[in-house]
Amino acid sequence: MKPKIIRTIAELRHEINHYRLNAGTIKSTVGFVPTMGYLHEGHASLLRRSAADNGLTVLSIFVNPLQFGPNEDLDKYPRDEEHDIRIASQAGTDLIFIPEVKEMYPQRNVTEVTVEEITDRLCGSSRPGHFNGVATVVTKLFNIVQPNRAYFGLKDAQQIAVISRMVRDLNIPVEIVPCPTIRENDGLALSSRNVFLGQEERRQALVLSRTLSKVTDWIAGGMTAPQLIAQIAEEIRREPLADIDYADVLNYPDLSLLPSQLPLQQASGSLIIALAVRFGKTRLIDNRLLIPVEVGEY
Amino acid sequence: MKPKIIRTIAELRHEINHYRLNAGTIKSTVGFVPTMGYLHEGHASLLRRSAADNGLTVLSIFVNPLQFGPNEDLDKYPRDEEHDIRIASQAGTDLIFIPEVKEMYPQRNVTEVTVEEITDRLCGSSRPGHFNGVATVVTKLFNIVQPNRAYFGLKDAQQIAVISRMVRDLNIPVEIVPCPTIRENDGLALSSRNVFLGQEERRQALVLSRTLSKVTDWIAGGMTAPQLIAQIAEEIRREPLADIDYADVLNYPDLSLLPSQLPLQQASGSLIIALAVRFGKTRLIDNRLLIPVEVGEY
Repeated sequence: MKPKIIRTIAELRHEINHYRLNAGTIKSTVGFVPTMGYLHEGHASLLRRSAADNGLTVLSIFVNPLQFGPNEDLDKYPRDEEHDIRIASQAGTDLIFIPEVKEMYPQRNVTEVTVEEITDRLCGSSRPGHFNGVATVVTKLFNIVQPNRAYFGLKDAQQIAVISRMVRDLNIPVEIVPCPTIRENDGLALSSRNVFLGQEERRQALVLSRTLSKVTDWIAGGMTAPQLIAQIAEEIRREPLADIDYADVLNYPDLSLLPSQLPLQQASGSLIIALAVRFGKTRLIDNRLLIPVEVGEY
Repeated sequence: MKPKIIRTIAELRHEINHYRLNAGTIKSTVGFVPTMGYLHEGHASLLRRSAADNGLTVLSIFVNPLQFGPNEDLDKYPRDEEHDIRIASQAGTDLIFIPEVKEMYPQRNVTEVTVEEITDRLCGSSRPGHFNGVATVVTKLFNIVQPNRAYFGLKDAQQIAVISRMVRDLNIPVEIVPCPTIRENDGLALSSRNVFLGQEERRQALVLSRTLSKVTDWIAGGMTAPQLIAQIAEEIRREPLADIDYADVLNYPDLSLLPSQLPLQQASGSLIIALAVRFGKTRLIDNRLLIPVEVGEY
């Protein structure tokens, strides 16, 4: 069935209430996938997962001005509503919420949700204010949709860490479901921003996934965090167009620093190796999570 | 029926869910009265109103450390659980949620809800951080209780303004119901802190309500905001124990300044005359709202 396109908060609430009142008790849960649109297979995988888990799947498409810095790519962020509706439809979406900025922020927003500490590093430090914008809009969307579960891709691992912590701290009654990063066949993590890459940039960007695939060997070789970071940076700099924003290894999900003398193979909890690298004007992120059991990673 | 005493979030959610699932559709709404305990007739009036409006009334008693400054009266804030349960019971309360601090803040709280502008003046400026603490704990409590309506006393008029704005900005699905200030027969606004007043302080504290009762005459006489503030200050200073923290007249509910040349009787919207005055170690607040129709005030 074709998903219903909804542009106002009032109509969305009405549709969801109507569903809840009529669904009965079998699988009457609501799954939610908040996005900025320009959907790719990564988003589709979240929607399919939600459709499998829940009776109703809601997708939101909203390029949130609050999470973009003054010199970032808000204006040129790619948009294609028709394409998005087609992808969402094939992935089992029931409702697509596409609000205008005026609908989400009818007046100057004086209320913000701020998350400290966990936003000190990685994208939190290179994009000041970004995660407060994310936390605020996600809180708004959660209050509008009131989903039972919300689905996020692990490519944005820090975003998941921030939202999970916010949900816990504020007692928000939503289950956060982290889902695996989806990649092209050659390893490039899917991102709406990949469309901006020139042919040579696209080729060199493979250094991210290639580097991440080597970290387990390097760690097995006994490297500490500073050694691993240096090794990663050296590897990435082999590609002349790569301009490193950050490359770091941290505890996950609290994103705290590791003792600099500790061989990483002796770390007791989960680790994240996180990269943000510019190719021309396009900033790409990628990461790998290592969990401390045989399985090794998500 | 005696209200049920609940000390954990999980049990409270369970009780409320159980109610919602079994209430059917007639008056199945949940009313919520968040307090810091030491209940008086003001709180009781909120509870009775909630019990009249809703099928289930939930009271929370939680002295929230986050909204107290380092030199404020957190430790000596009055508590009397037995007395509170008796008052709540007589006022038609169904569930009383009395969490420990550890239950509400099991780990360091890194997430805060902040509200700007509207918190710049009055208690916002004399108690820095206070309203962020209020906004954060109210957000948590709303997420735990998920009430249809929440009841607040207009004695804390700025608190209502802040919470109403937060609810609108964050799309929180709760109706905020402002309720009139309850006073002693001699005019003193009820407050849990009144218990700290010595006999002479208690007598002199009547200057607050007495002064507020005169403002309509002064405004009718053509006063501007600075003139009214000066007149109020003069009146209050006649009581030797009165130490003014602030006395102000502002637009309500946005708490913006009025043009200093404007006779207040020509103001187009609602006004608040707000006072905070210390008597010895006890800080009291009181206010009067003027709405621009014949009725004159709430």
